[in-house]
Amino acid sequence: MFIDKLTIIGVGLIGGSLARALKATSVCGEIVGVGRDPTSLEKAVQLGVIDRYENDPRRAVCGADVVVLAVPVGAMESVLQQIKDYVEPRAIMTDVGSTKRSVIAAAQRVFNVVPANFVPAHPIAGTEKSGVEASFAKLFQERRVVLTPLGDTDPEALDRVRAMWEKTGATVIEMSAARHDEIFAAISHLPHLAAYALVDSLARLNNSTEILAFAAGGFRDFTRIAASDPVMWRDICLANHVAIVPILNHFIDDLSSLVAAIENTDGVALHAIFSRAKALREQLSLPGR
Amino acid sequence: MFIDKLTIIGVGLIGGSLARALKATSVCGEIVGVGRDPTSLEKAVQLGVIDRYENDPRRAVCGADVVVLAVPVGAMESVLQQIKDYVEPRAIMTDVGSTKRSVIAAAQRVFNVVPANFVPAHPIAGTEKSGVEASFAKLFQERRVVLTPLGDTDPEALDRVRAMWEKTGATVIEMSAARHDEIFAAISHLPHLAAYALVDSLARLNNSTEILAFAAGGFRDFTRIAASDPVMWRDICLANHVAIVPILNHFIDDLSSLVAAIENTDGVALHAIFSRAKALREQLSLPGR
Repeated sequence: MFIDKLTIIGVGLIGGSLARALKATSVCGEIVGVGRDPTSLEKAVQLGVIDRYENDPRRAVCGADVVVLAVPVGAMESVLQQIKDYVEPRAIMTDVGSTKRSVIAAAQRVFNVVPANFVPAHPIAGTEKSGVEASFAKLFQERRVVLTPLGDTDPEALDRVRAMWEKTGATVIEMSAARHDEIFAAISHLPHLAAYALVDSLARLNNSTEILAFAAGGFRDFTRIAASDPVMWRDICLANHVAIVPILNHFIDDLSSLVAAIENTDGVALHAIFSRAKALREQLSLPGR
Repeated sequence: MFIDKLTIIGVGLIGGSLARALKATSVCGEIVGVGRDPTSLEKAVQLGVIDRYENDPRRAVCGADVVVLAVPVGAMESVLQQIKDYVEPRAIMTDVGSTKRSVIAAAQRVFNVVPANFVPAHPIAGTEKSGVEASFAKLFQERRVVLTPLGDTDPEALDRVRAMWEKTGATVIEMSAARHDEIFAAISHLPHLAAYALVDSLARLNNSTEILAFAAGGFRDFTRIAASDPVMWRDICLANHVAIVPILNHFIDDLSSLVAAIENTDGVALHAIFSRAKALREQLSLPGR
């Protein structure tokens, strides 16, 4: 057996999908879920996502070979604090957080030094849905998982986390936590925040009900990600503020230039912006990308 | 026959789809296309979208019962100027422009007063694709078409344009041009401009190639509309600047508040914004909406 006992703390979309994917490949002896909501955990057992659950993370990590932290990034530190004295010395710890520097900093605060058996990870997958009911085994297929090991990370722990994710059908890559946080501030955090802000902006207009009655396909696609989990995104904003604030300000500057071009009736500038964006967007749609 | 001769000036996605939809219901005797690109018009004939084409709009409108202007809104005035002395007095003129005050103003400049047989219209349909190859007969099914008649608009002309659009499967509604322009600045123009600006913003980062390699589903959905036609959107920006500039500034203010909340570590404010947006976005996904 590849992993005799796997403990997943936080059995939502990501934690639940990881459990399903690993069950489908029969590489785990037992998968134990941990969470704060017993109803949701009962559901996870009924759905066959996990074998059983515990409410106390301390009990749940006893005897576990691998412990996966799949809670919002703002909850990582308190979970690490709880399991600190109960996790097996030989166990591998890893997480699925969308920000990496903050999770590493949390581990450092709890353990004084980031443990060599802690492997920071981020599966690049998800939908705007959340909760174990939304989980599915193929979520990670043909997706990427980014590992951001430190200089002291145990190579064997790194290899096992890599192998675990490869079992789900994902491609695993490595980069520094800082580079990860910069890239995802731009390609993921910024679009989510723009979609949230836009929907909220329209919602607060006086005639919002009338306006939203005309929402068509383009608007729906554009704002789908605004239905994502607010707690998760609050935590991402706070955890990755160092990278998010500059990119948001960059976007605000570009929108301000757009306003100036419109006010100056500068059709050439507008056409240039739209053409560059169209060309780039079409590159992303090419097969294989 | 409901329309003996229909002339469509601009046989792209919208003009082509209208022609296809009307052909499918056999209500037109002859559909004549007009455009600047003979290759595209040849293609339209080969595809069976139109019966024949003319390069000169003046010749094309002779004998036409209905003339549809399906060119970018910035080209409406010059087309009206060209056809002014050639369109039959009994003919109905209508357009498909995404902005309505600017088209009405163009008609007024050309004809001194907006002709009673000119019915401003906007079908709320489209995709990010453009050109006659992208056109299809069902584009308008279960979509809305907004008519923005003036006080002097001939009721019979209005009824015929309404009936023409109903033949395509669309639901026709009426409102003032000013109300139309406000609503669509918010629900359509703002999201398109935000998507264009965001893609262009990322494109101009130093490490844009590296960043864009991580574009996942959320980013692709969010930015799909940035592949829309740059000329069309340049014209919409210039034509509807009166409504677009305030709503863009409103959005910029909201993004700035978001930056402030992140900088102040104000998790409560962030959660409130994201929760409001999520609740509203989920309303839009309800069946029947």
